[in-house]
Formats: sequence, structure tokens, C-alpha cells
Amino acid sequence: MIPKDHPRYKSLVTREHLADCARKGIVSWEGLTSHGRGEAFDYLLGEKTSESARQAEKAAAALLKTARHPVISVNGNTAALAAEGIAGLQKASGALVEVNLFHRKAERVQMIESLLREAGADVYSGDAERLLPLSHDRAWCRRDGMYSADVILVPLEDGDRCEVLVGMGKKVIAIDLNPLSRTAKTATLTVVDEVTRALPEIATAYTALSEKECQDIVRLLDNRVFLSEARNEMARRLCDVLD
Amino acid sequence: MIPKDHPRYKSLVTREHLADCARKGIVSWEGLTSHGRGEAFDYLLGEKTSESARQAEKAAAALLKTARHPVISVNGNTAALAAEGIAGLQKASGALVEVNLFHRKAERVQMIESLLREAGADVYSGDAERLLPLSHDRAWCRRDGMYSADVILVPLEDGDRCEVLVGMGKKVIAIDLNPLSRTAKTATLTVVDEVTRALPEIATAYTALSEKECQDIVRLLDNRVFLSEARNEMARRLCDVLD
Repeated sequence: MIPKDHPRYKSLVTREHLADCARKGIVSWEGLTSHGRGEAFDYLLGEKTSESARQAEKAAAALLKTARHPVISVNGNTAALAAEGIAGLQKASGALVEVNLFHRKAERVQMIESLLREAGADVYSGDAERLLPLSHDRAWCRRDGMYSADVILVPLEDGDRCEVLVGMGKKVIAIDLNPLSRTAKTATLTVVDEVTRALPEIATAYTALSEKECQDIVRLLDNRVFLSEARNEMARRLCDVLD
Repeated sequence: MIPKDHPRYKSLVTREHLADCARKGIVSWEGLTSHGRGEAFDYLLGEKTSESARQAEKAAAALLKTARHPVISVNGNTAALAAEGIAGLQKASGALVEVNLFHRKAERVQMIESLLREAGADVYSGDAERLLPLSHDRAWCRRDGMYSADVILVPLEDGDRCEVLVGMGKKVIAIDLNPLSRTAKTATLTVVDEVTRALPEIATAYTALSEKECQDIVRLLDNRVFLSEARNEMARRLCDVLD
């Protein structure tokens, strides 16, 4: 049992929850390590949503709202950490929710879909095909789902799929705490924020923004500015914290 | 299988190795997340030993060489990642190697001790007692080992034990990639470097330094300088990398 007064209580409880999810097979072993990476970058953000992340979350809402066929791609870590956030954003936006895994097994897909459904999400499932030009399991998706999407939200992406999706002409929104990652640099828009904080912010912005505002935000979107502000925020904290 | 030309090949192979060790019970589930945290900070170091880390490694060697009773404390992650490095440093320095775990089980201790012995380390085992003023399993150590040590090297420490050891009047050398961690700030000396790079550097410095040089280095040691330089190094990389 983790004592409630431990200075890292929330972080430790989340780790234990993820370890439980790994034991059940929802989260992969590698997913635990990825989470640790994210933790470190969130630490450098002060574990709160920065002003530039809030702007990026508005931009994410604008991209989803101006989309013809928006899809939210969910992996094990996202489902384990933020099933409610996914359900909430789906309700606000009407986007399709589709499970896409690096370590794909039929039963793992089913467990994650159940977890999302229990949280209130309407999951788009059915037969997947090998449609994306990738060598690993992430190539599997649905023709009427991710394959046809014009805008895809990929929280906690950790590979080369972002590049492939952008190469297919899709607009990709990443939620990634590492502003230096390939995903962060390749995505159309990168939200540098923790996923459980980011998803409700995107949902709220989706409801608040008018169509006109969304079009303006999308027209002016420059991901390099968001990434640069996130990096500066982290650098500031590295230098300030002990001096 | 991870393709050899993957830009993150080494990092992914290490992750897989740690996941294997977790399956065997050598590494704890939480240890996988801790590793991920370290990965992120190492990324910010450019995954190489900085000049200030090299100075800290010299200082670590000096502390070990001027010690009356030096002990190297080993946990699951350290054994999984760097059993050879531990064996090499022990041979160079003659320090005691003792296993100390947060998630302690007799069979886990034995597995880790075997791993270290296979790598060539002489492991100090025997009956442990609950000797450190800590509520969790890390309290267990040997009276003639860690309990009596004047200098302790703790690679990959992740808790409050560092504070307790310092409070007992011991000099603690931490190897910790996070220059902001409680361990990093509490230790007598923090080596901000990756453990497989740090251990051979400390061993080499141990052999190269004279007694007189060691005394001078120990007298002038200021951990705040090492931490500040590590933070500046990381901040610089955050700001430079994309601009």
C-alpha cells in the first residue's frame, strides 16, 4: 500500500494501476516503460497543463470539428489511463473510437474494447484488415474506420505509424509528452500534455468553439510553435527548480 | 524482432531485455516504469556521458577509494542492466556487493545474486536483518554489509532510502539520470549518467587515481555543482534540438 502522504502518491498509484493492467494483459510490458518516459517529461512540465498545451488542445478540437471523418485511435496505455476521457471526447465530438495495437492479439483487443465500453465509449470494431503500410501489427485497421479517416487523434503513439498516416494524407493529432519524439515532430499537431488532462480539455474546447473559430485556428496552425513552447517550458523548469 | 536499422534499436533491445527480466521476476513491474523515466532523461543527455558526469564519476571513485568499508547496493534493474559493470567495479575497488530490494522476496534475492555471480561478482549474502529505519522491504540488510558501510554506492535508487542512509551518517553515491529527483538532491554525490556507462568509468577512475588525488577530490566535492551542470546540459539539448 502506498501511503497517502507520499510526495509522489498520484504517480505511484498510477504506476500500480498500470502494472495491474499489465498483469491482466491490457497494457504491454513495453507500455510500462513508455509510461515511465512520459512521467519524466510530465515532471518537467510541472505535471500541469501549460498555456501552450491549452492552445494546442483548442487546435485539436478545431481539427476534429472541421474533419469529415475523425477517428480516435486507442492503444493499451490510453485505455488503461484514460478510458473515461476517450468516452467523454467521443460523446462531445462524435468521432469514431478504434483500437489499434502494436502488440495485437484478438483477446487483448477485446479486453481493451470492453474497458472502453464500460467507460461509456461506443467502440467501432468489426473485422480489421492489414491496410496501413507498416510491417508490424499496427498495420491492422478497419477500412471504414482509421483507413478512411481524414483526421486521426493518436494519444500515446510510440512509433513510426504517425509518419505513415501523415504520408497517407491524413491530419494526425498526437498527444505526446515528449516534444522531441519522432511522433511529436511528424504529427500535424502535437499536444504536449498528459493524456488524462488533455482529453477533457479537447472535449470542452470542442463544445465551446464555433465552426468559424475552428476554421481560423486550423488555417493558422503551426506545430513547430507548440513544440518550441513545450521545450522552453521544460528547459525553464530544469534550470529553475533547484537554483 | 526489432529491426537493426530502427533509430531507437538499442533502447528497444534494452526494453525487451528488461521485459524478459520482469517475466522471470528479476525486475519488478514498477522497475519497468522507472527505467522509462531514466530513458527520457538520458535522451535529454544525448545518451552519452557528459563532461560533468565524467567528473562526478571520478569523484565517485575517490569516495570509494577513501572509504573504510565501501558497499555497492544492487537492485533488480541494476542487475538486469549492468551485472558486468557491477562485477568490474567490484574487482577494481574491492567493495562489497549486496542486494537490496524494494520488492523483496527470498527467491528474487537469489535470482539477482545468481545473475551477479554469473557476471563475475563476489556477492555478499547471508542472513539479512531489518536494520534500516524504513517501513518497507529496503530496511533489510546485513549488519556487516550495508549497515556498517561508511560509503554506499546506490545505482538506480528510487525512494527515500538515500535520505535514511545519509541520516545515518553514511556518504551516499547515487547513479541517477534524473537530476531533479529526491535521491539526486539528497545524495552526497550524484552521478547523472546511464548506469552501464557510469560503472566502467568509475572503475577506470578508481584504478587511475592516486590516494592524494582522491583526498583532494573528496575535500572539494560539491554535489550542487554536478546537479546544476546536468540540468543545464539537458536544458540546452531541449532548446537546441529542433531549432
